[in-house]
Amino acid sequence: MTDEFHITREHNAELDALLGNPFKVLDKGFIRLIDYMGSDSAIVQAARVSYGKGTKRLNEDRGLIRYLMRHRHTTPFEMCEIKFHVKLPIFVARQWVRHRTANINEYSARYSVLDNEFYVPEPAQLGVQHQHKKQARGAQLETQKHDEIISVIEKNNEDSYKNYEWMIDEMGLAREVARTSLPVNIYTQWYWKINLHNLLHFISLRKDPHAQYEIRVYADILADIVQKWVPLTYEAFSDYVLGGAKLSANGLALVKARLRGDTAQEAMIKEKISAGELRELEQLLDLENE
Amino acid sequence: MTDEFHITREHNAELDALLGNPFKVLDKGFIRLIDYMGSDSAIVQAARVSYGKGTKRLNEDRGLIRYLMRHRHTTPFEMCEIKFHVKLPIFVARQWVRHRTANINEYSARYSVLDNEFYVPEPAQLGVQHQHKKQARGAQLETQKHDEIISVIEKNNEDSYKNYEWMIDEMGLAREVARTSLPVNIYTQWYWKINLHNLLHFISLRKDPHAQYEIRVYADILADIVQKWVPLTYEAFSDYVLGGAKLSANGLALVKARLRGDTAQEAMIKEKISAGELRELEQLLDLENE
Amino acid sequence: MTDEFHITREHNAELDALLGNPFKVLDKGFIRLIDYMGSDSAIVQAARVSYGKGTKRLNEDRGLIRYLMRHRHTTPFEMCEIKFHVKLPIFVARQWVRHRTANINEYSARYSVLDNEFYVPEPAQLGVQHQHKKQARGAQLETQKHDEIISVIEKNNEDSYKNYEWMIDEMGLAREVARTSLPVNIYTQWYWKINLHNLLHFISLRKDPHAQYEIRVYADILADIVQKWVPLTYEAFSDYVLGGAKLSANGLALVKARLRGDTAQEAMIKEKISAGELRELEQLLDLENE
Amino acid sequence: MTDEFHITREHNAELDALLGNPFKVLDKGFIRLIDYMGSDSAIVQAARVSYGKGTKRLNEDRGLIRYLMRHRHTTPFEMCEIKFHVKLPIFVARQWVRHRTANINEYSARYSVLDNEFYVPEPAQLGVQHQHKKQARGAQLETQKHDEIISVIEKNNEDSYKNYEWMIDEMGLAREVARTSLPVNIYTQWYWKINLHNLLHFISLRKDPHAQYEIRVYADILADIVQKWVPLTYEAFSDYVLGGAKLSANGLALVKARLRGDTAQEAMIKEKISAGELRELEQLLDLENE
Repeated sequence: MTDEFHITREHNAELDALLGNPFKVLDKGFIRLIDYMGSDSAIVQAARVSYGKGTKRLNEDRGLIRYLMRHRHTTPFEMCEIKFHVKLPIFVARQWVRHRTANINEYSARYSVLDNEFYVPEPAQLGVQHQHKKQARGAQLETQKHDEIISVIEKNNEDSYKNYEWMIDEMGLAREVARTSLPVNIYTQWYWKINLHNLLHFISLRKDPHAQYEIRVYADILADIVQKWVPLTYEAFSDYVLGGAKLSANGLALVKARLRGDTAQEAMIKEKISAGELRELEQLLDLENE
Repeated sequence: MTDEFHITREHNAELDALLGNPFKVLDKGFIRLIDYMGSDSAIVQAARVSYGKGTKRLNEDRGLIRYLMRHRHTTPFEMCEIKFHVKLPIFVARQWVRHRTANINEYSARYSVLDNEFYVPEPAQLGVQHQHKKQARGAQLETQKHDEIISVIEKNNEDSYKNYEWMIDEMGLAREVARTSLPVNIYTQWYWKINLHNLLHFISLRKDPHAQYEIRVYADILADIVQKWVPLTYEAFSDYVLGGAKLSANGLALVKARLRGDTAQEAMIKEKISAGELRELEQLLDLENE
Repeated sequence: MTDEFHITREHNAELDALLGNPFKVLDKGFIRLIDYMGSDSAIVQAARVSYGKGTKRLNEDRGLIRYLMRHRHTTPFEMCEIKFHVKLPIFVARQWVRHRTANINEYSARYSVLDNEFYVPEPAQLGVQHQHKKQARGAQLETQKHDEIISVIEKNNEDSYKNYEWMIDEMGLAREVARTSLPVNIYTQWYWKINLHNLLHFISLRKDPHAQYEIRVYADILADIVQKWVPLTYEAFSDYVLGGAKLSANGLALVKARLRGDTAQEAMIKEKISAGELRELEQLLDLENE
Repeated sequence: MTDEFHITREHNAELDALLGNPFKVLDKGFIRLIDYMGSDSAIVQAARVSYGKGTKRLNEDRGLIRYLMRHRHTTPFEMCEIKFHVKLPIFVARQWVRHRTANINEYSARYSVLDNEFYVPEPAQLGVQHQHKKQARGAQLETQKHDEIISVIEKNNEDSYKNYEWMIDEMGLAREVARTSLPVNIYTQWYWKINLHNLLHFISLRKDPHAQYEIRVYADILADIVQKWVPLTYEAFSDYVLGGAKLSANGLALVKARLRGDTAQEAMIKEKISAGELRELEQLLDLENE
């Protein structure tokens, strides 16, 4: 470490071309990439510090990144950082903010007046209450109900915004009080900065089919940007996390029994698995029709 | 560490008597103490592990706790943990959740229907928009405006809840969509668990006069409970944090100059301080009228 | 929420009997349980707040806990907290402290003199350097080398402690400088507090066969205590995490192809899996001998 | 948010010139700047999102940054991130790692052989044990003791490294066991990434005269780099944190009484302050000689 170590910052031309341009999300939201630090190489570089002199043979970046992802060596992925400007409805922001290991600066409705911009769902998103999954929407509602619902939502938005403006402009009420009558579908915005490891965790939970549609569409855009940013990492993440599966001890035993053709053992294991878990397992392994 | 080390859990009779009982906050909210771990003694015990054999003379609990607080030795205060059940309006929850180093389980409006319970301010809280402090409310509004504003707020609450019920009951719309039209003054609830160090930080920021009234009243209750829980710590916290003050380098130099009666030096320092900071400093030191 | 809500703190008689008693670990280390908050019921209680009115049918604790564990609903597990007093060698402490979401108060060798207590491995732990796994030890060394190695280690400990004492007692050197010559096998101690979710993560990584033996034995004790503390949670954790397995997208496709008996598809998938991952997969599924 | 938002990444020419070059610290350590994200402008930009339309008058960057620092609005400072490669003795690493909100990849002595490089203090650092401050060193030791101590330290280093090499090379012992005999003054290295807010906190604690000399010299270099990176922020940090002071409630009351010349009140307040705190206060305000 004596002579010349000068380095330059890594650039990703594809990302640089995107910087600042809004990706449209929902009806009035967006994601804008503001800045980033690091790359697939930065992950490899950090991992190599850990492995030090012992890593002569781990000399292929793709293989090393896949190894790290497969074996839950998460710290090298924390060496990359990314920052976004996001415009999103408050009810989405409320789910989003539960990812605690990130940095946020949100627009303050105490300091400033909120714009008259509300999320109004497209008809395709007007799903019925799901019968079994209490947190989900099911099939799309009948077409004749769409217009009725949407006009109720729009009327609700207009009325509450009118009340908001009246309290501020006519009554002189403090903004921090007046805003409490606004619904959670009004848009807010924030700067959001997070490291790659935590961002992948965010994507794995929010790109999931169980996540609410309105946050899932944000996660989809984030995933696209991550793929451009760190393509090797995103590939490994897709293979090992997004596209992979977890088996329980019983699930694993069942798979092994079936692979051996040991039907007695298989039947015995099934006894030990709850109906709900068994259904999930059969769907996972395409065993339903057998 | 060889023979008998048996200990029992510490109890605080005063806290035990409070367990589960709701402290009323705002018009329909509450704080309920659910569980706690540790005490002033647990803080001292943890600090003594750090100081080991070197602490013969730090043998008085109160003095040690004050020393820890004064010198920012924060880790012993992390050794105490407390858990609450809180009912609060969503706009308060949105400020509260920004304290990231805590554990939360919130009522889910995807799973369940929200109750028809909204925060409606008392007339005393209907302040005008503050002219200089953009995030604050100023003097109370004229009495004749109170009823008008409150009926607009109540009407807004009723209408949005009626729409919400109609979308769920009449239209069969999924709860996770229907709830997006509800205003941020509707009540939610959560379990909230935090360590003492982070709770004191929460209190120092949210009991502050600059905090919004509607979260300040929660912080006041939390402070009362902390005082019963760890009285020595709360006393030190009151002296060194809540009741204390921070001086900038210039503020400190100005105080010293004035204490020495060096008016030339004092004038010179004032040149270097911005008008805003100087005003804050004069208020702090009661120098305005001199 | 109007009348009487009084509750009492939950107790676990089995844990209470353990409080303070040292569990011996390694040659001179220990784990002592100091305090705990919560139980399986506290987890269920917190989850029920989230599910609110929608949870009529999730009325069986064991089933709910398994559902939470299976679906990565981690926040209810954060509602339990536990505190230990641990004595451990510095090199173990250096691995342990990398679990950042915990609270620590460590004995300070700046304040106090460290005791003359060093970890000396048992012969069974004197493994050769593993050839393939660079971070691991392999088979036990030949018996004739044991005594030689152990006496070198003991001599090294004695010499460095003698130097340490001499610098402090004879030379009057500050402790914070003198201690820098002590080896990382000297024992330190700390109070360590962590929530259940993070503790389970700690156990899953440190009870793993890839973890270094000297931290694994601590994780084993912690796991035993957790099992007594929250038996339903520990059972679910054993089934879904410790005893379970992760399949990659390719691993899952391979399992499906084989279950269908589609050997052509199976061969095609194998092409896409690296040699290292394929070996891990075959071991997992007991496919080696086929 | 309608037409063209393209932006480019911010650069800091002064920092770019430093990238990769080692700053020498202690006898064999270094700090190398690897990458950074953000600038004073990025802080202002994030704060402006929060203040939204309400900030017409907060239009001067320096004033806004000072306001944020003075009023503990810490989140905008989290919007900047920086990454270093650091070589440091293990006993320094042990203090450093206690700052939990950072990302680390450390050289692993399980994977790789550690180099024969140990920290040996300069004579100026051979201080006597401080009599009152148990964690500190006092005046320099007598010159005749220097050579003696340093040769004991160097002998200790050589012996332990010889033992280490012998266990690995001659005995074939696993590295993860052999390294446990190495002293905590051996050098390790890591990549360390942290946001600006947490870095300033690190500097405020570790640049403090109470911090151990061997970590303070690292904090000094970090402070110099921060000053080049975000000069307005560093200026505000110097004025409000490094050069400022905290007064307790009693301390503040005493200052006010003295400014008013109310000696009776002053005497009464002094009664309530402990001897230790009074001494600290008198030093702070240069009151000793009065």
